[in-house]
Amino acid sequence: MAIQFTVTKECSRSRARLGRLQTPHGVVETPVFMPVGTQATVKTMAPHELEELGVEIILSNTYHLYLRPGSDVVEEAGGLHKFMGWPRPILTDSGGFQVFSLGPLRTISEEGVEFRSHLDGSKHFFSPEKSMEIQMQLGADIIMAFDECAPYPAERSYVKESKDLTYRWAKRCQATHTREDQALFGIVQGGVYKDLRRESALELMDLGFPGYGIGGLSVGEPKELMYEVLDDLMPIMPKNKPRYLMGVGSPDCLVEGVLRGVDMFDCVWPTRLARHGMVITRQGNLPIRNLPYARDFTPIEEGCGCYTCQNFSRAYIRHLIKANEVLGIRLTTIHNIYFLTRLMREIRTAIAADCLPEFAREFLSGYEGEK
Amino acid sequence: MAIQFTVTKECSRSRARLGRLQTPHGVVETPVFMPVGTQATVKTMAPHELEELGVEIILSNTYHLYLRPGSDVVEEAGGLHKFMGWPRPILTDSGGFQVFSLGPLRTISEEGVEFRSHLDGSKHFFSPEKSMEIQMQLGADIIMAFDECAPYPAERSYVKESKDLTYRWAKRCQATHTREDQALFGIVQGGVYKDLRRESALELMDLGFPGYGIGGLSVGEPKELMYEVLDDLMPIMPKNKPRYLMGVGSPDCLVEGVLRGVDMFDCVWPTRLARHGMVITRQGNLPIRNLPYARDFTPIEEGCGCYTCQNFSRAYIRHLIKANEVLGIRLTTIHNIYFLTRLMREIRTAIAADCLPEFAREFLSGYEGEK
Repeated sequence: MAIQFTVTKECSRSRARLGRLQTPHGVVETPVFMPVGTQATVKTMAPHELEELGVEIILSNTYHLYLRPGSDVVEEAGGLHKFMGWPRPILTDSGGFQVFSLGPLRTISEEGVEFRSHLDGSKHFFSPEKSMEIQMQLGADIIMAFDECAPYPAERSYVKESKDLTYRWAKRCQATHTREDQALFGIVQGGVYKDLRRESALELMDLGFPGYGIGGLSVGEPKELMYEVLDDLMPIMPKNKPRYLMGVGSPDCLVEGVLRGVDMFDCVWPTRLARHGMVITRQGNLPIRNLPYARDFTPIEEGCGCYTCQNFSRAYIRHLIKANEVLGIRLTTIHNIYFLTRLMREIRTAIAADCLPEFAREFLSGYEGEK
Repeated sequence: MAIQFTVTKECSRSRARLGRLQTPHGVVETPVFMPVGTQATVKTMAPHELEELGVEIILSNTYHLYLRPGSDVVEEAGGLHKFMGWPRPILTDSGGFQVFSLGPLRTISEEGVEFRSHLDGSKHFFSPEKSMEIQMQLGADIIMAFDECAPYPAERSYVKESKDLTYRWAKRCQATHTREDQALFGIVQGGVYKDLRRESALELMDLGFPGYGIGGLSVGEPKELMYEVLDDLMPIMPKNKPRYLMGVGSPDCLVEGVLRGVDMFDCVWPTRLARHGMVITRQGNLPIRNLPYARDFTPIEEGCGCYTCQNFSRAYIRHLIKANEVLGIRLTTIHNIYFLTRLMREIRTAIAADCLPEFAREFLSGYEGEK
């Protein structure tokens, strides 16, 4: 078995649980947030900085690495861990979400997806088999089945077909995947249609995966609707397998997701936000590039233990960002990733102390999330 | 006295010397190369990384900080050291070179220079007094007199007038500067006219500064001509004062400068080069963004002790740079700064062992510099 997952504690008043995910590159404590390193680097960060921030696992993107530098180059380097100098666990996505996001540049068939590169317009074809081949070349600890992610909103009939295709593709992925040092996760689809979600989950559980992604949420639907879908879906998910809510990473959604039994999350949001001069605080986002911070010599957050808050003022960070200095977006990225790794640590502590509902209530009442 | 400079050893076969420059923010071993932090940050680098690379002093730019974030903001932050989180020595230039470089955007008079901001076109006036005022607000350990830097090539008559103006402005700087925790350096001008250089040096020595910049070199003249000017000028410079060759930073020029008695250097070259995907090696510059390095899994330089070479391959760095990833230019910047701080350390070791001429011969025979 490539991974071993153990639930070490369950919350008595919610579906939250503490877990230990053992991988070939070390242990991950769950619930966990995974920063995204799209092109074999978490934007602006060096690997040792991620470790210092307490990051235990990162995600990288099959579509991007396939196009550049080429998954064969990564394989020749000895795999993604070695190529990027990150010795800890990595999860790669299947490339599905990225190619579907190409819109008019792609065509879907039973066989797979034909698409044109966003870089040079060149033609390529991704199938379940091809996605497995690439992800085996990359060599992540956890890899994802090639799925179709339906958009929101979408007709029930479209979502059903898409979910059925995802199931057939999941079988083909399972048949192709051979690396014993990698765990292949299936992906539950079904949009916001609860019965389709349940069907999808049961079908995939029937195939038997060591873990399950929950795809196609946080794609434009209201947050409340996402929570409802999770409320309905999570009770039927297997207890002893990790559940990974894909593409979700805002603080309020992390807390709400954990309460519903999610173990893993990823999102480009905190790092992208940072590059736009926005920092996360307990109260919500702070647009640090704005004028009010020009002479504000306090840190982003009083009491925050991150390198940025320990050493630099809002005024300095604002100056750097206004002046397009790389250090500016490095400092905001450090803070935002630290914020989320600390939040997940606090969540785990709260589960361990069996007081997650209280922690969640207090956190959510102070935090103003994006709508 | 703001600074104390002690020559601790002189080379028996060249004008090179070892020195100790004591400043309010610590000691600098000379000869030294100062990386440039134009906008209160050495581009892409965090302060602690500079310290880890062995950087002992950095330069920052008066013109840029005056415009953004404003020298009053820096003063309110408690000075430049505190604002940017750099606890070690800083030198600021006078703003002169930058405003002269604005070309048609500036007008020079006896009083000073009127110019328009490159950021928003707003009108400003720099005089010797204004430059002192700003540099006192910034609070660097070493500040520079406001000078006029003649271009190359330039008529002798223009260069003479410019040198005379620089002298009169140096007196006004001296009369204005009052901070006792800052050392004000005069700047020798005179272009490539040796007699004017000597005149300039003697005039300034007459005023008596704790150190001397040598300005207006490396502005387009052939390197050999710069070396000739230094050969002629350096013997009359005071032995017990630091000599700072402004704007010079390529490895061959550093070695040649030290051989002629220079103690301090600065240049944007190594950091700018890095951002263009070029790295410095013992053999010369390596264009790491080029195709031949796509599958080159060796470090930039075998045996180099920098973080970049210890952890990453040419192929990975090339990928990052091609993909416009910030980590790419961080890694090349780290290597280039390390290269120069190590070179200066080797130079100091060679002077201490009285074998600088041999070290220089060997280094220069292997290194192919830019023409």
